[in-house]
Amino acid sequence: MIGKTNLSVGEAQARVLRHVPLGGVEEVPLECSLGRVLAGEVRANRDLPPRDVSAMDGFAVRSADLAGAGAVLTVIEDIRAGDRPQRSVAGGQCARIMTGAPVPSGADAVVRVEDTRALSGDRVEILVPVKAGDDIRLRGETLRNGDVALAAGTEITPGAVGVLAAVKRARVLVRRRPRVAVLSSGDELEALDAPFDPERIPESNGHALMAQVRALGIEPAYLGIARDEPEELAAYLRRGLEHDVLLVSGGSSVGTHDHVRPALEALGVTLHFWCVEMKPGHPVALGTRDERLVFALPGNPVSSMVCFEQFVLPALRAFMGHSRLFRRDVTATLAHAVKHKPGRTEFVRVTLRRGADGGLTASSTGMQSSGNLCSMAQADGLLIVPADCDGLAAGAAARVQLLDGAGFEVASVFAENAP
Amino acid sequence: MIGKTNLSVGEAQARVLRHVPLGGVEEVPLECSLGRVLAGEVRANRDLPPRDVSAMDGFAVRSADLAGAGAVLTVIEDIRAGDRPQRSVAGGQCARIMTGAPVPSGADAVVRVEDTRALSGDRVEILVPVKAGDDIRLRGETLRNGDVALAAGTEITPGAVGVLAAVKRARVLVRRRPRVAVLSSGDELEALDAPFDPERIPESNGHALMAQVRALGIEPAYLGIARDEPEELAAYLRRGLEHDVLLVSGGSSVGTHDHVRPALEALGVTLHFWCVEMKPGHPVALGTRDERLVFALPGNPVSSMVCFEQFVLPALRAFMGHSRLFRRDVTATLAHAVKHKPGRTEFVRVTLRRGADGGLTASSTGMQSSGNLCSMAQADGLLIVPADCDGLAAGAAARVQLLDGAGFEVASVFAENAP
Repeated sequence: MIGKTNLSVGEAQARVLRHVPLGGVEEVPLECSLGRVLAGEVRANRDLPPRDVSAMDGFAVRSADLAGAGAVLTVIEDIRAGDRPQRSVAGGQCARIMTGAPVPSGADAVVRVEDTRALSGDRVEILVPVKAGDDIRLRGETLRNGDVALAAGTEITPGAVGVLAAVKRARVLVRRRPRVAVLSSGDELEALDAPFDPERIPESNGHALMAQVRALGIEPAYLGIARDEPEELAAYLRRGLEHDVLLVSGGSSVGTHDHVRPALEALGVTLHFWCVEMKPGHPVALGTRDERLVFALPGNPVSSMVCFEQFVLPALRAFMGHSRLFRRDVTATLAHAVKHKPGRTEFVRVTLRRGADGGLTASSTGMQSSGNLCSMAQADGLLIVPADCDGLAAGAAARVQLLDGAGFEVASVFAENAP
Repeated sequence: MIGKTNLSVGEAQARVLRHVPLGGVEEVPLECSLGRVLAGEVRANRDLPPRDVSAMDGFAVRSADLAGAGAVLTVIEDIRAGDRPQRSVAGGQCARIMTGAPVPSGADAVVRVEDTRALSGDRVEILVPVKAGDDIRLRGETLRNGDVALAAGTEITPGAVGVLAAVKRARVLVRRRPRVAVLSSGDELEALDAPFDPERIPESNGHALMAQVRALGIEPAYLGIARDEPEELAAYLRRGLEHDVLLVSGGSSVGTHDHVRPALEALGVTLHFWCVEMKPGHPVALGTRDERLVFALPGNPVSSMVCFEQFVLPALRAFMGHSRLFRRDVTATLAHAVKHKPGRTEFVRVTLRRGADGGLTASSTGMQSSGNLCSMAQADGLLIVPADCDGLAAGAAARVQLLDGAGFEVASVFAENAP
């Protein structure tokens, strides 16, 4: 089942994605659809806009009247959004019109109010040249009745929510989310609600993993801590395998007290890999039973989180029907050299700083021990040192996977120091 | 109250942030804290790790025994995580040790199991040179008892959740979220649940804005659609002003049927700006009454969403105590020229594509009409054309604000075509 050689990160990701099933379909209210993926295409049920409308507040005019500068027109009507125009615009006439209001017959352009001057009586002077079609949004310009407004597989972003509202879908068909269970294992672990015991190590992996799952819009089930006893562990794993995806952290090392691997195999789980050439993160395993996935993640908290980012995150997103499965990465300049021995892909926790030139500089969060969870709380991203690299020099460009929270920056692009 | 000249985007952002109050403090369970901001510092309540522990599965050794290669040691004990070592390691001895297990007295280094060879009996051959301290995580290496584990103002990312669990905080003090109300205005608007009327335009702004608010982790209140009648509008606005932040879209133009501005002033709202030199997005207003904020957003759906991104988003994040207030932007190469007349900052909806060299290319989503909501559903980001720019050439570098959904990519950095 498991090849003799260790996999690269990319090979392991490909192997994960070959085993992820696509989630089923469910209907949800529009207000609960954000972040989900459309299970089918959505078509427009009318032309949008439903007729020719003004794109601006101003005056609906006949462009033929405005060949010369300084034309003066007579205002024959006020047309508001939601009105129906009552009169046709004839030569020398215009209608005052609001954004979104229907363009009256006869008119073929709109002049914005800032480009006009009110005169006495019902007259207005047009201060700019005007072409036919100016500032008119044509009927069906955004969508024609029957057009595909959103394709199947579209992620429902706020913009897509707007489109769904515009085509009046109060309920939408989306891919369902996976049911995810999180289990920690290890005799040394102290539960969050357990009394303080100086001999024990507080259980943090499970909580960090649950937060990573929640950040993807999925509410996980926490199974708790399984002790290093075969029967207890098997009972926990059996419960975990009732979910679409089970995450187990700890207990998956190559040592003699490794219970998780044989326990999974005894439960009929097929293992697809056990080791990936990465640091931190080794060992990490993928198993499947029918359509259920199990990830056995390392016991070191940083390793567990980094493995989640590389393997579990794309799997959960694939299940939900996303086509964008991977973290965005940015290019940053290294503030300092990074040592590296060729062999394993290395993930260095870094902070990002925006320089005066608009570029990003990456600096290590400091000690890169895989036990140093604080580094994951400080990091903006994971700097990737390719497996075959023999070190990166200060000033070199590197790719940095953005972590949760790094979608936002301290300074605005419009701040004074922006280019 | 309002200066005569229009503001730049940066000036308007600065003015918004001067008026945002900092949200109060509330206690939430750890599992509900993701994305919130710590209201106070959090200190460690024990050393982490609580004693010197092994960073690997392997053997706890005395480095003095391993000056030469090929040393053979006698295994005197098995130490698992959660165990207490029973024996001290003397010369020529070692202990089998698991990741996270306490290092026994006498030993000063750990050799990983892969770097050893089991011999007959209780003996093991050490295949590599070993230095004192190798693969030992020292007591207090991550945190010492009493250290600040997380500073006040830290955003609670999954890594921070891990740290909070590691210092046993089942409940955490965070800044509260603002109560946000969303109101649409306009006689032409048809509610999502109203019957189809070909003369009307489906209300989409409010739904898109609510999704933008939800994407920030805030559940907004939807007030519905206010008709263009002064009394009805005033009643809606009064209800909206019971919230920390009120978003009104539509009705805020410079035309004669503009009800929102006088209605807000009549309710005692002080207006701080009404126009910003941006496209799309003009007009957009900020008002305050006591500590309540009102944003009057344009009626065009794209304009309304773009204004949210620039002004409302940083305000809501500031209220929640974030120090990262602004969208992350990335540098991308333009696939085509972008025309621009100096004057207003322009936001061009673009898709991003990752090239074979790892760089990003930005392409317009097509028609950039501010009525074309589909462009917001397609866009990965907003390409920024600075106000003083007289056009961007194909191949030029530009900054692109990432929109919701663009935190993920189609291809992995570890895919074959990655550098």
